[in-house]
Amino acid sequence: MSLQKVNLAEKFALFSDHWNPRVVGELNGQQVKLVKLKGPFDWHHHDHEDELFLVVRGSFRMELRDGVVDLREGEFIVVPRGVEHRPVAEEEVQVLLFEPASTLNTGNVRTERTRDALERL
Amino acid sequence: MSLQKVNLAEKFALFSDHWNPRVVGELNGQQVKLVKLKGPFDWHHHDHEDELFLVVRGSFRMELRDGVVDLREGEFIVVPRGVEHRPVAEEEVQVLLFEPASTLNTGNVRTERTRDALERL
Repeated sequence: MSLQKVNLAEKFALFSDHWNPRVVGELNGQQVKLVKLKGPFDWHHHDHEDELFLVVRGSFRMELRDGVVDLREGEFIVVPRGVEHRPVAEEEVQVLLFEPASTLNTGNVRTERTRDALERL
Repeated sequence: MSLQKVNLAEKFALFSDHWNPRVVGELNGQQVKLVKLKGPFDWHHHDHEDELFLVVRGSFRMELRDGVVDLREGEFIVVPRGVEHRPVAEEEVQVLLFEPASTLNTGNVRTERTRDALERL
């Protein structure tokens, strides 16, 4: 059997740090990433990539320049390219990301949380 | 507020037919689709599209020419382009699909379950 499935809970159990996405799948030039968020992130946007955030466990809010979207388990949001955003998680939240393989987590800014090379699980 | 979130359970509650994917999100030329599966589908492949199946509720098996992968809630599989596959669900299962907007549900074959134009929810 060449094709392997991915169990999200098993993958999330493999790491505990925040703001450090892991790659768990690739298709059509896009990647599936898992990340744990806690606290406020950095304001940023992506010039060329739309980004999907799906909550797997917990909740967080997506701050936008014109408002806030509260996201709970089983909800997703697509942040289009060019739109400034800042995820903020009061408690740890498990999030699945769908985005182009080229996407840098901090987009147009560099901070101490920028991750250039992502681990594959 | 221009950006809207999508609640998967609310969207799944809007339809009850099987093998008829609805589009609930678009990004980077890809689409997020929701579909309810029940029973065996048709063997097919996609010439140009890799396809991701994520189980939101229930379980099903992905039959491949060289084996079977059993998928439960919180698990996904990527079926690469060119790989023949047939989803089979003993009981109804809710599945999220992530694939290029060009993807036809029955791939290289046409059957009574082929859906050329998908509803957007």
